[in-house]
Amino acid sequence: MFDSITIVGVGLISGSFSLALKDKGLVKNVIGVSRTKASLDKALELGLIDEAYPLEEAVKKSDLIYVAIPVDVTVPMMRTIMDMVTDRQVVTDAGSTKQALCESLADHPMRHRFVAAHPMWGTEYSGPEAAVHNAFAGRSCVICEKEKSATDALDMIEGLYRDMGMHMVYMDADSHDMHAAYISHISHITSFALANTVLEKEKEESAIFELAGGGFESTVRLAKSSPAMWLPIFMQNRENVLDVLNEHISQLRKFKACLEKENADYLRELMENANKIRRIIK
Amino acid sequence: MFDSITIVGVGLISGSFSLALKDKGLVKNVIGVSRTKASLDKALELGLIDEAYPLEEAVKKSDLIYVAIPVDVTVPMMRTIMDMVTDRQVVTDAGSTKQALCESLADHPMRHRFVAAHPMWGTEYSGPEAAVHNAFAGRSCVICEKEKSATDALDMIEGLYRDMGMHMVYMDADSHDMHAAYISHISHITSFALANTVLEKEKEESAIFELAGGGFESTVRLAKSSPAMWLPIFMQNRENVLDVLNEHISQLRKFKACLEKENADYLRELMENANKIRRIIK
Repeated sequence: MFDSITIVGVGLISGSFSLALKDKGLVKNVIGVSRTKASLDKALELGLIDEAYPLEEAVKKSDLIYVAIPVDVTVPMMRTIMDMVTDRQVVTDAGSTKQALCESLADHPMRHRFVAAHPMWGTEYSGPEAAVHNAFAGRSCVICEKEKSATDALDMIEGLYRDMGMHMVYMDADSHDMHAAYISHISHITSFALANTVLEKEKEESAIFELAGGGFESTVRLAKSSPAMWLPIFMQNRENVLDVLNEHISQLRKFKACLEKENADYLRELMENANKIRRIIK
Repeated sequence: MFDSITIVGVGLISGSFSLALKDKGLVKNVIGVSRTKASLDKALELGLIDEAYPLEEAVKKSDLIYVAIPVDVTVPMMRTIMDMVTDRQVVTDAGSTKQALCESLADHPMRHRFVAAHPMWGTEYSGPEAAVHNAFAGRSCVICEKEKSATDALDMIEGLYRDMGMHMVYMDADSHDMHAAYISHISHITSFALANTVLEKEKEESAIFELAGGGFESTVRLAKSSPAMWLPIFMQNRENVLDVLNEHISQLRKFKACLEKENADYLRELMENANKIRRIIK
């Protein structure tokens, strides 16, 4: 049971994290830090936070500091926070990239108080209104460079996510960013691009509205995601994202060639190969 | 209330159609026709059909013949059925393409007994086990060439789908196939290609299994779809599918160029444009 924790950024992830702690009775007081007063007001109204303070004051009052802001601003923010913390505090992040952050903190004297974590959960919505109860259950949480975190800090973060129903996966930061590009970031790129494709070709928006079935909604859902959150992810992880994006374009060109040449046999083969995903994803 | 209807093909769509009729008490007896004995046995066991007969006998006994088989075999099958029907019977299909079928039946003396329909609903699963209750509710049903169907036949099909909670949209067959390519078929291509991309790049299948979150599952879901059903759709609608697939590849290349050139401004613009889909899809 924490007396006080701070969430830096009050949005989808930190708000859902706060709700999960509160629902389990694991925290008395949640402090919110944000540059945006409207977000703090909304988070207070929704009960995601109990108080709002400037960063320095908030950090001083807290056992745990949970940072969930865009990954580009996470890097300098985290250094600022690490400069403030003592050996009785723990700091963690929830970012979708890990390499730049871990590199930036590698030489920090308080590195052992930091746990680099990526709870693999999210929705296409953002902001405090997007926070939901029971958010992380059943998903994986990637912990990077666990050997660089103090045992008590690591135990605390793993314990919290386990209480929320997550299971832990351990990776170095490079591997995390590569796998995240393959499994998460490319899905966002394809969905953004699919939305642009359909908006470009389908001049009758009423047709999209009337004809869109579950299939279209499902593939285009991520195109609603926040550019403020995803642009820095793509930029920070650009080499891995480019690598998988090149592969994806080349896979699409195979479908294109099959259609152009009316090569039904190869087209069937491509689809049967794709069906193998059934083995992996329920 | 029908005494007897026939479903040709006993799978996801026809099975769900049968369940919807039975749930609403609209039919006494459903006859199944299939080349596959195992499918008929399963459909009998699941209560999707009450009897199984060869095509000719089934058609003779039925007020309504509902054809839901792959779109390539629909064309010759539908001519065979239309050669058998009388002015007291109605025939309809549920295919995802309409142009080839409508052209093939254009000169048939019984054309007025046929209603060209596409209930815009489906899942990535197939076969009789995939049939579900309350399948079509809240979706659109496209009716093509309504002027070529007899009023009583059109009223019957529209009435049934309306009872199931669908709303009607009217189009000529060419427009249907174009809109279907833009809004449904391209989603399937991108999902098949995304599955192949991830299977190619992510050699550690355990990583896919462990790290896949809701976003990946949602964009790759359609890659589980049946090649037997979707290959003929892509081939019949290849010109429209190629047209939108070319656009999609060109949209992806814009993302690629932004990443290569580290052009964050244009990347943000692409994502903000994609966000416009929020206006259209809830």
